[in-house]
Amino acid sequence: MDKQTLIETHQRIKLFIHNTPVLSSTLLNEMTGAKLFFKCENFQKMGAFKMRGAASAITSLTNEERQKGVVTHSSGNFAQAVALAAKQLNTKAYIVMPENAPQVKKNAVKDYGGNVIECGATPEAREEAAVRIKKQTGATFLHPSNQDEVIFGNSTAAIELLQNKPDLEVILTPVGGGGLIAGTALAAHFFGNTCEVVGGEPFEVDDAYRSLQSGKIERNTTTNTVADGLRTYLGDRNFPIIQKYVDRIIRVDEEEIIRAMKLIWERMKIIIEPSCAVPFAAVLREKEKFKSKKIGIILSGGNVDVTKLPF
Amino acid sequence: MDKQTLIETHQRIKLFIHNTPVLSSTLLNEMTGAKLFFKCENFQKMGAFKMRGAASAITSLTNEERQKGVVTHSSGNFAQAVALAAKQLNTKAYIVMPENAPQVKKNAVKDYGGNVIECGATPEAREEAAVRIKKQTGATFLHPSNQDEVIFGNSTAAIELLQNKPDLEVILTPVGGGGLIAGTALAAHFFGNTCEVVGGEPFEVDDAYRSLQSGKIERNTTTNTVADGLRTYLGDRNFPIIQKYVDRIIRVDEEEIIRAMKLIWERMKIIIEPSCAVPFAAVLREKEKFKSKKIGIILSGGNVDVTKLPF
Repeated sequence: MDKQTLIETHQRIKLFIHNTPVLSSTLLNEMTGAKLFFKCENFQKMGAFKMRGAASAITSLTNEERQKGVVTHSSGNFAQAVALAAKQLNTKAYIVMPENAPQVKKNAVKDYGGNVIECGATPEAREEAAVRIKKQTGATFLHPSNQDEVIFGNSTAAIELLQNKPDLEVILTPVGGGGLIAGTALAAHFFGNTCEVVGGEPFEVDDAYRSLQSGKIERNTTTNTVADGLRTYLGDRNFPIIQKYVDRIIRVDEEEIIRAMKLIWERMKIIIEPSCAVPFAAVLREKEKFKSKKIGIILSGGNVDVTKLPF
Repeated sequence: MDKQTLIETHQRIKLFIHNTPVLSSTLLNEMTGAKLFFKCENFQKMGAFKMRGAASAITSLTNEERQKGVVTHSSGNFAQAVALAAKQLNTKAYIVMPENAPQVKKNAVKDYGGNVIECGATPEAREEAAVRIKKQTGATFLHPSNQDEVIFGNSTAAIELLQNKPDLEVILTPVGGGGLIAGTALAAHFFGNTCEVVGGEPFEVDDAYRSLQSGKIERNTTTNTVADGLRTYLGDRNFPIIQKYVDRIIRVDEEEIIRAMKLIWERMKIIIEPSCAVPFAAVLREKEKFKSKKIGIILSGGNVDVTKLPF
């Protein structure tokens, strides 16, 4: 977990990802009194930062491993990311998805060339299915957030952001499984100039906030949030990084998330998914603390059903 | 109407507009078989290309004229554009709007510092009101589309696009009042390398298509289109330019517009208004003719009520 590893990871995946643009908005700067720089991973390949972790994990395999393929369980962005990265790298991708997952998500994975394996709707069923595929095919299991190569891949969004804006005082990301904020914290530590890292998390799934307080990985008792990408919990690979390098986590309520999402849509004219709005909601909530600061925000993704919006 | 005028216009307004980004999408290229370059005027100040025409018109006034202010009637993007450009140039803006215009549009003009003058909901009432303001204040009347300075200002979007992609074979724009396509046609003529200009127009308001056929300015009998920015008709300043320099107009139906809009939202993760989707709908409609070509599309604007979408 040193600087060189992150540099090598970035070099290794550069051909398979976009160096996404950094946007700013006069109106949102005026509204917050801060200088905001949005790293637009909603414009990333397949529409989310998860492409970076997936590309990193697959490019770190040996040729022999790569021939046998990769397997993951996800019904979200990581499923599409693994399918697309595997396709680009000429690898088979086995994606375990619950049978009740929306058909549109299964189709998205298939469109990217992934093999969808359906399973029951419980965590046990999906793990069983993944283990079975692994045994049958020799495929390597990839975890959406709790795997070093994935975390290193995720770090490259903040590395690019800091290359573009070296004097950022703070970078914010959403906190779900912990893979994005852990990678971002490593990037800020090794590439920033005393740059803080702050997480945004919904009150409804504030496991990371509570984990940092208790010192052990907490689970969520409810998952009643519009930020559907953040309903997961931390893991043993990313939690120590978060403990060491993340400054704090700001919790926001559902109305704040929806308001922040709508503001970014209306003012910046870009499409972001609800989870992606959480860090900006955190800045709005603690406006006074962020005033006058140069702030980076990782816009994590833009995969949202535009016919089912929360506003 | 020479090249030098367009160059001078661009120089004059540069400080007051964004040089908006040009985006492309692998997925949309694959879908059409063409190479598409989208000039993102939805990211322009106040969210639409109209900012260019408004800035051009106001910067072309004498100091004396500018002190007396400007007046226009519009309930759309031009109203906001004039208000914002006038504010930047320290000029008073009088915007005549029908009393039944949505409050959100009136507020947007006021937010930019414009003076809203309400009038009856008929074309006669708004013209009367504009004439009255002109008499009372000595303000200069600005037309949203049928005024040389506005047309020259609009041309700068295509000039920037051609500076970025000099070998475009065709540029498409929507056709409403005719100001954008006329400016684009001038830019393609003076700055392009045998670059065609093609308009996209809804069947429901195909006045420009019929005008080119009949040789005189036709009006619309219905305005029943989702592309609310295109319900107007051509004028005596822009029609001759369109006759001389526009190659053809492709008409599209309402379903095609909505499908094109949704595709751009979902695949490019950017917000465009319905009128803005019309040229891409035209490319999809005549896919075979555009195949393998390098195509520029002016994305005209992104001001849409995100709580009232057509899909």
